[in-house]
Amino acid sequence: MTLPPLGDYLATLRTATPLVHCMTNYVAMNSTANLLLATGASPAMLHAPEEVAEFTAISTGLSINIGTISAHWAEAMLTAAATAGQHSIPWVLDPVAVGATYYRQSLCTRLLALKPSVIRGNASEILALNGLASQGRGVDSTAASGQAIDAAIALAQKHGCIVAMTGESDWVTNGTQHYRIHGGHPLMPRVTTLGCGLSALVTAFVAANREAPLEATAAALGCFAVAGERAGKTAQGPGSFQVALLDALYQLTPDDLTAHTQLEPRHAV
Amino acid sequence: MTLPPLGDYLATLRTATPLVHCMTNYVAMNSTANLLLATGASPAMLHAPEEVAEFTAISTGLSINIGTISAHWAEAMLTAAATAGQHSIPWVLDPVAVGATYYRQSLCTRLLALKPSVIRGNASEILALNGLASQGRGVDSTAASGQAIDAAIALAQKHGCIVAMTGESDWVTNGTQHYRIHGGHPLMPRVTTLGCGLSALVTAFVAANREAPLEATAAALGCFAVAGERAGKTAQGPGSFQVALLDALYQLTPDDLTAHTQLEPRHAV
Amino acid sequence: MTLPPLGDYLATLRTATPLVHCMTNYVAMNSTANLLLATGASPAMLHAPEEVAEFTAISTGLSINIGTISAHWAEAMLTAAATAGQHSIPWVLDPVAVGATYYRQSLCTRLLALKPSVIRGNASEILALNGLASQGRGVDSTAASGQAIDAAIALAQKHGCIVAMTGESDWVTNGTQHYRIHGGHPLMPRVTTLGCGLSALVTAFVAANREAPLEATAAALGCFAVAGERAGKTAQGPGSFQVALLDALYQLTPDDLTAHTQLEPRHAV
Repeated sequence: MTLPPLGDYLATLRTATPLVHCMTNYVAMNSTANLLLATGASPAMLHAPEEVAEFTAISTGLSINIGTISAHWAEAMLTAAATAGQHSIPWVLDPVAVGATYYRQSLCTRLLALKPSVIRGNASEILALNGLASQGRGVDSTAASGQAIDAAIALAQKHGCIVAMTGESDWVTNGTQHYRIHGGHPLMPRVTTLGCGLSALVTAFVAANREAPLEATAAALGCFAVAGERAGKTAQGPGSFQVALLDALYQLTPDDLTAHTQLEPRHAV
Repeated sequence: MTLPPLGDYLATLRTATPLVHCMTNYVAMNSTANLLLATGASPAMLHAPEEVAEFTAISTGLSINIGTISAHWAEAMLTAAATAGQHSIPWVLDPVAVGATYYRQSLCTRLLALKPSVIRGNASEILALNGLASQGRGVDSTAASGQAIDAAIALAQKHGCIVAMTGESDWVTNGTQHYRIHGGHPLMPRVTTLGCGLSALVTAFVAANREAPLEATAAALGCFAVAGERAGKTAQGPGSFQVALLDALYQLTPDDLTAHTQLEPRHAV
Repeated sequence: MTLPPLGDYLATLRTATPLVHCMTNYVAMNSTANLLLATGASPAMLHAPEEVAEFTAISTGLSINIGTISAHWAEAMLTAAATAGQHSIPWVLDPVAVGATYYRQSLCTRLLALKPSVIRGNASEILALNGLASQGRGVDSTAASGQAIDAAIALAQKHGCIVAMTGESDWVTNGTQHYRIHGGHPLMPRVTTLGCGLSALVTAFVAANREAPLEATAAALGCFAVAGERAGKTAQGPGSFQVALLDALYQLTPDDLTAHTQLEPRHAV
């Protein structure tokens, strides 16, 4: 079976430098912007109800992350997601800690109704989002990635979207076709908001490669997997890891990405 | 006199990975999360009135920092602190720049009434909090640590809590028993929000070691003192210092902490 | 023609450690505080309407950046800028992405009426601010710096302020006297919020050197140009560049700044 040429999607991203409208949490804003810039996309963070629709409409993609949600932000996110839908702009949902509180579950139900192009979460979040019943513990995943694969596939089928579930190994699925991606490094969960930043990077890849959202999502995950492995080779802890990850994403070439991503395609489970 | 085995408190923290609900300022959110993750705790940042009580109730500890306070945040902090009290969850107050404005003084008066387990501040802040009269200058300390020891002890006695006062050397007191901690590095005040992050780390230590809050607070300060010294050995400025500090906290072993913290116990002043 | 002694302005800043009240965007807060601390100023971030005027009045300078603006912040910025005017405290406006939405244009019109001491932006922003007509694309500049020089001079004349326009090369003008500054490094646009941080550094320089705002602004730009070149010599990508930039700003001496800034004075265009 032929593997998708992941490097091509990175090359396209770098040529297009997609403008990614990021509505993300306060913890992740700076690191997300730096991850996008290092890889080759153009981030913009803004959220005021007075301007959010106007800006989403001129963006290439929209990334929504509910990490530090509050009422005004929630309304603006719903407006932005609806605007993205009206203009056929791809948008990505990162349902941070959706299992932790009723408020998050209620907001995610409303966001799901606006049809995200991709959902990116850890196993706990994917389980919670699929069932809106599972118990998450804060923002870190406690469920094993393997346990949640069925939930990811069901979620993709139910909402007609891509689901990217990340953890020790990553899964990406459109409900019928799936990829497993290996790589990364054990230090990655010791650096805050890498998952949030990955959701924004997925947005950039999908926005720049609209004809192939499943493969573009896999390419974004591949960037983190390959750059993460490389960063881990020199890092002495989470501080130097984070610095090395940005450098590795910047240095990563399309050929690197195609050659070194440990991608395992799977059809119909 | 026998010194407390500070490393034991770090070992307990790493086993327990306490979930620390952080309500902190925008400047400190990312660095605080990274400091907690590097040391071995699990941070979660959220603040919406719709969910804050629900989440505090499932947390191991609560860290409140008023750095970039505004009305909605203040109300949510009061709700969270009250919830922590109801569930006997330890919580820590960081009264950033409390001397600078009447608004901060008024909010801290309300927070103190909710009985924090620990107060962590610099000398200016401890003086201001004790007197609610002293003049602070922004967020950096201008009063010498030594001058404020009486205020720290008085504050601990008045509110039945631990007070950790940090500066060139640190003091921790429960009003009758005190420790002085030496160490750290002159570059530490040149990196923003390390004090804010330390307050969250104190929360993690106290939450994971509820039987010994005074010693657990000393252990948190010891981590910064020892890791700060180590980071200072390779740093060429505040940029590389911050990176090296995260690495040093990650690499720090319980034995290191016990052996290298310059801890000086003092009874009844 | 004699060049201004840029190093003298840095020496003054380090002696005075000006307290810079920063009202900036969520993405830039941490990096801005670190850039100010590394160079030698004292940052403070706060924005509540309940305290903002009280705090601006005791600050040495005020830095306003509209990056992640919303209604409460906008009102507080207007209050702070008015307070700065009443107390003759220098203040700097960073009109992030002013061309992108009507909301930003409307807010900037109100802020300009409060007479900023300095405006710092990229070419797109300066063009948009001068015309309140040009089309910006998000937060990154798309117009060439050269194209916008006339706009910068016109803006300075119209509002009786300094305009600092940064890009591949920088311009600073008071409407009649101008400097061009070369230096920096191609990695600088790949690190988020360096421009935002530079606006705050301009505030610190102008606050500490009130008798020479044009030259003090040039000195701030010179710090970034010289430190940026040095950081670029060791950086392997945007991660290590950001770390090295903070170290280089910390290590930069007044003599370095005077000797190595590539400053080109120009009179009456």
